Amino acid sequence: MKVSIVGASGYTGGELLRLLLQHPQVEVHQVTSERNAGKPVTRLHPNLRKQTQLAFCTMKELEKADLLFVALPHTEFMKRFDLLAPLAEKIIDLSADFRLKDLSVYRKWYGMEHAQPEKLAEFIYGNVELHRQEMKQARYISGAGCNATAAILGLWPLFKLGVIDTTLPVVAEAKCGSSEGGNSASEGSHHPERSGCVRSYKPTGHRHIAEMEQELGQTIHFSATSIDMVRGILVTAHLFVKEGITEKDIWKTYRELYSKEPFIRIVKEKQGIYRFPEPKILAGTNFCDIGFELEGRRLVVVSAIDNLMKGAAGQAVHAMNVMAGFEETTGLSFAGLHPV
Amino acid sequence: MKVSIVGASGYTGGELLRLLLQHPQVEVHQVTSERNAGKPVTRLHPNLRKQTQLAFCTMKELEKADLLFVALPHTEFMKRFDLLAPLAEKIIDLSADFRLKDLSVYRKWYGMEHAQPEKLAEFIYGNVELHRQEMKQARYISGAGCNATAAILGLWPLFKLGVIDTTLPVVAEAKCGSSEGGNSASEGSHHPERSGCVRSYKPTGHRHIAEMEQELGQTIHFSATSIDMVRGILVTAHLFVKEGITEKDIWKTYRELYSKEPFIRIVKEKQGIYRFPEPKILAGTNFCDIGFELEGRRLVVVSAIDNLMKGAAGQAVHAMNVMAGFEETTGLSFAGLHPV
Amino acid sequence: MKVSIVGASGYTGGELLRLLLQHPQVEVHQVTSERNAGKPVTRLHPNLRKQTQLAFCTMKELEKADLLFVALPHTEFMKRFDLLAPLAEKIIDLSADFRLKDLSVYRKWYGMEHAQPEKLAEFIYGNVELHRQEMKQARYISGAGCNATAAILGLWPLFKLGVIDTTLPVVAEAKCGSSEGGNSASEGSHHPERSGCVRSYKPTGHRHIAEMEQELGQTIHFSATSIDMVRGILVTAHLFVKEGITEKDIWKTYRELYSKEPFIRIVKEKQGIYRFPEPKILAGTNFCDIGFELEGRRLVVVSAIDNLMKGAAGQAVHAMNVMAGFEETTGLSFAGLHPV
Amino acid sequence: MKVSIVGASGYTGGELLRLLLQHPQVEVHQVTSERNAGKPVTRLHPNLRKQTQLAFCTMKELEKADLLFVALPHTEFMKRFDLLAPLAEKIIDLSADFRLKDLSVYRKWYGMEHAQPEKLAEFIYGNVELHRQEMKQARYISGAGCNATAAILGLWPLFKLGVIDTTLPVVAEAKCGSSEGGNSASEGSHHPERSGCVRSYKPTGHRHIAEMEQELGQTIHFSATSIDMVRGILVTAHLFVKEGITEKDIWKTYRELYSKEPFIRIVKEKQGIYRFPEPKILAGTNFCDIGFELEGRRLVVVSAIDNLMKGAAGQAVHAMNVMAGFEETTGLSFAGLHPV
Repeated sequence: MKVSIVGASGYTGGELLRLLLQHPQVEVHQVTSERNAGKPVTRLHPNLRKQTQLAFCTMKELEKADLLFVALPHTEFMKRFDLLAPLAEKIIDLSADFRLKDLSVYRKWYGMEHAQPEKLAEFIYGNVELHRQEMKQARYISGAGCNATAAILGLWPLFKLGVIDTTLPVVAEAKCGSSEGGNSASEGSHHPERSGCVRSYKPTGHRHIAEMEQELGQTIHFSATSIDMVRGILVTAHLFVKEGITEKDIWKTYRELYSKEPFIRIVKEKQGIYRFPEPKILAGTNFCDIGFELEGRRLVVVSAIDNLMKGAAGQAVHAMNVMAGFEETTGLSFAGLHPV
Repeated sequence: MKVSIVGASGYTGGELLRLLLQHPQVEVHQVTSERNAGKPVTRLHPNLRKQTQLAFCTMKELEKADLLFVALPHTEFMKRFDLLAPLAEKIIDLSADFRLKDLSVYRKWYGMEHAQPEKLAEFIYGNVELHRQEMKQARYISGAGCNATAAILGLWPLFKLGVIDTTLPVVAEAKCGSSEGGNSASEGSHHPERSGCVRSYKPTGHRHIAEMEQELGQTIHFSATSIDMVRGILVTAHLFVKEGITEKDIWKTYRELYSKEPFIRIVKEKQGIYRFPEPKILAGTNFCDIGFELEGRRLVVVSAIDNLMKGAAGQAVHAMNVMAGFEETTGLSFAGLHPV
Repeated sequence: MKVSIVGASGYTGGELLRLLLQHPQVEVHQVTSERNAGKPVTRLHPNLRKQTQLAFCTMKELEKADLLFVALPHTEFMKRFDLLAPLAEKIIDLSADFRLKDLSVYRKWYGMEHAQPEKLAEFIYGNVELHRQEMKQARYISGAGCNATAAILGLWPLFKLGVIDTTLPVVAEAKCGSSEGGNSASEGSHHPERSGCVRSYKPTGHRHIAEMEQELGQTIHFSATSIDMVRGILVTAHLFVKEGITEKDIWKTYRELYSKEPFIRIVKEKQGIYRFPEPKILAGTNFCDIGFELEGRRLVVVSAIDNLMKGAAGQAVHAMNVMAGFEETTGLSFAGLHPV
Repeated sequence: MKVSIVGASGYTGGELLRLLLQHPQVEVHQVTSERNAGKPVTRLHPNLRKQTQLAFCTMKELEKADLLFVALPHTEFMKRFDLLAPLAEKIIDLSADFRLKDLSVYRKWYGMEHAQPEKLAEFIYGNVELHRQEMKQARYISGAGCNATAAILGLWPLFKLGVIDTTLPVVAEAKCGSSEGGNSASEGSHHPERSGCVRSYKPTGHRHIAEMEQELGQTIHFSATSIDMVRGILVTAHLFVKEGITEKDIWKTYRELYSKEPFIRIVKEKQGIYRFPEPKILAGTNFCDIGFELEGRRLVVVSAIDNLMKGAAGQAVHAMNVMAGFEETTGLSFAGLHPV
């Protein structure tokens, strides 16, 4: 399969490129970057030295491909949709442009009009676990937000199978790494300021809430805190189960929906250091590890991912595998490092 | 004033010693460590090189003093109460032994009988902001837990002045540093495992909950997550205000109870990197920084402290200053570093 | 090929296991740990969850295999040589037991008699780049030390091709991560002490010097400094070239010996952030990145590796591939992450 | 004493301000920042909340003072010398403008002409330990570079008292934190890139070499490596002593020149975790900790400082104390934190 990456200079684009270069059923045809056109990709992605001779081209130079990955900044893809869409039968977009189904919700959270409102319905939301069947026929997929993915995958079976008392508020808090903010330097990302921080960057109002609520059908009170980590997200969610629900019921709930999922692991052990999910051992992997603790009716759910993998590029490659009918784990088999 | 520290080899004891050595109205008389008796204190506290010639002595060698700080492991002080109490008119204990007023609560959370049940009532809980008047006459003070302090100081005015809808659950989550666990190495504190971690070490059941509920008169759903940080705690609390409560009301609430507090700062700015409290710039200080964000009826409160200072040794010195009638900030004026 | 790992509970053993589980031409038969016999390997290596059902067995339970990897603590293998040797035609040892060719050198650096002196000559030192031909016929290989590997690979071509003025001292300094010390917790590895450290742990006298001097035929003044990193080594070496040697000559020297090496990259760029080698983008990879800067006759050489990969398990799998006639990069193709 | 800070928005200026606000014999009169004029200083220095009501003013608004601290970017002070000099009897400059005595050396390392060549001789180089007597009469002091300070203080007694074999090369390598680069964000200081780095940023050609060579009278082969640390420098220097020199001689050498120095500690212990100097326990202090190890004729010297304190602002306040005849340690008594 011939694929190209539109917007390959950022962290997500680079991660996609790394995965696709080793994917046995894919040939990376072109990768674009307006600012870096002509330069070897290794200038921006030093981990790809000795992996590829590719250089960036401009969007104008793009040729037809079987599938386009689009990893442009938010709003850029929807503005160029008419130019890019004819280039490939299938498109997987990694921006936020086509994640929300409801135009008014888009308007509310993004504060602007959508440039392609009639196309929203054609995009399948990117979490394979929730939308596998639709993806198999889909032409367009919209990658899910990283924080949204961690929260949704941790909570979805619980709402789906009705174990949660939805009359009580659901609170979720993400601990986030710095790569989430992309590769542009800013005052806040300057190392002396960002190092060692525990920064309440979005106590309320994070845009990924819109996705969580869309997929879960439930109000989510979400806060995001930046910590001194580059890759990784840990979402800790606080809920209340219906009366009578036991730990066994929670186990059963997760098993029912996830037991065959290649990238979901339920992590809940009685001893050891890694009793619950931890993002650091997921760096470079496509896993979402999920754990929980029940005390009376209070349920704490913990879910961890690598934001650039399961939260972006890995998820997109997973979706491509589903779309194309490849083995789902192809190109995504890295187990993760320990210690790290 | 002649003071001694019982149990001065740990992190809390070392921090106390550092503060007291520079306190202009205090003379440190003796510091004990059974295992390190005879050794210079700098062997364990290398930051005190060129600050003192003190060596550790054993508890048996303790002489009378005006005030004893006790920084022994939990349960050690209550077992030795009859031996230690005669040595000083005033005692400030930094363990958990005398924090809880209600014996049955102690039993429930600590799973054991209390060795000095009749003495519980004589100890004043260590948050000066809540118990200043009692402290002025007190003989005994029991230092508050570090996570408890961060949560209590962030939430107390809100409950006290009645702005919170207490029919809805209150969730609080702490991001904690590794010094909280003390100076004993373990598998989980081994650097390759602990570095970079985002570890759900107490999703439910943390013992400091008992203190929070005692002081706040409110059920608190508390979780603690360890992150890659040595000093510092950030508590993010999620609450719902009563109908009609505005941001102005929250400001007023905090000002009413805290405007004269020397160690509380309300940190809530519209721009800049440090818009909300952050523990890293509090390292070595006795501040509790508190911020908040209100969105509809949802209130997120963020509070930050240095766990070894405001959460332990600094709080204890503050309490001593109040007890002894010294200027409250004496010996606690370090402003904190930036950047760091 | 049927392989077993003796001593698979440590960091090196775990890393070997991770690599071998994904190696297409290898079947992992048994993995031993005396203390953890019976437990699933995932108890100690949480990154291997969903990768394997293997459990540890004891050494006594070991059956015959085609190749044994031995990752026991130093001295343990030489003491058990007669028990383990009959179990496999080929052995790759990752300890220091068989690295040194000269008995008196072993005695000097390890302060003890060697248990199998007559076997020393049968082990090939583990850097493939230096000993590829010998490895092809070898029965036994002794993995090289991690710091030694970084220093040797950075300097070997320079001495081999005679560009260095060997009448002047050669100084090399390693910046080391904490995983180098293995998985046993100690006072010094306790997170509050080890985090943020820049610790001169071996200003002189590091045992890997013996290996460097054996392989380079040159006195090396080596110091090791621990920094806040889990995986990775950066060696900075300071040398003086012979009169008339230019930057071009240095390039030529490296190219002559390394241009066909699959795991060596010369990293020396004029711009960008990653102009010189950096260990962080090598985590999980088997690369040794080498860079240099020449100023007059002063030459600074910088080399970076992942100590658990190129410095231990990756190197051992590379050696196995050479021994067995497999494609050299098999199972070692991970490109490394960026950002990370 | 009435002092003002010219250029108080940067890290060095902020650190100066923190120290001076608590200095009992100093009143901070004005602090300038062209870009932030009118804003409270706490906007840029969040650690100073509740410490001061000061706001930045412009340079034009500067009034007379007893002493000016100038913390402008390099070249800015020498260009404004004629404007600023009339404002105060005494000036302490923290830039590199007046550090070098020899015009041709300045030209060589800074690649430009000096704007005030005839003033160079009037500035005393800022290491109090080397220039105390001159400072007592001085009008102008030029703060020493941070890496230069660590290297000079570690090596000066050795050269001064002639224990080193100066026919052999002297190599020194600094491990540096990110605050050294100032508070301007760049691609290289972006957290995902700078975090976890071990970056050879100046293998050769660092400008501080000029200062080291001026003060030590000796060629220094210096390299600088950036590591994941905000504050702090560790310099590891590699030298060779004259024949017959013993460990005792080295001890004597340091004692002879440093035994009365309030901010120098010789740190060399036989056991414990902190056997040698470490920058992390120096954060916020004005200490330079120095240690060494001698093996045969090879001597490794290790020196650690906080680059913003002993390497900049602390050193400047120390110099002011000497100039003004205050007790040397005034305002500089912070002991440093442990653990941290």
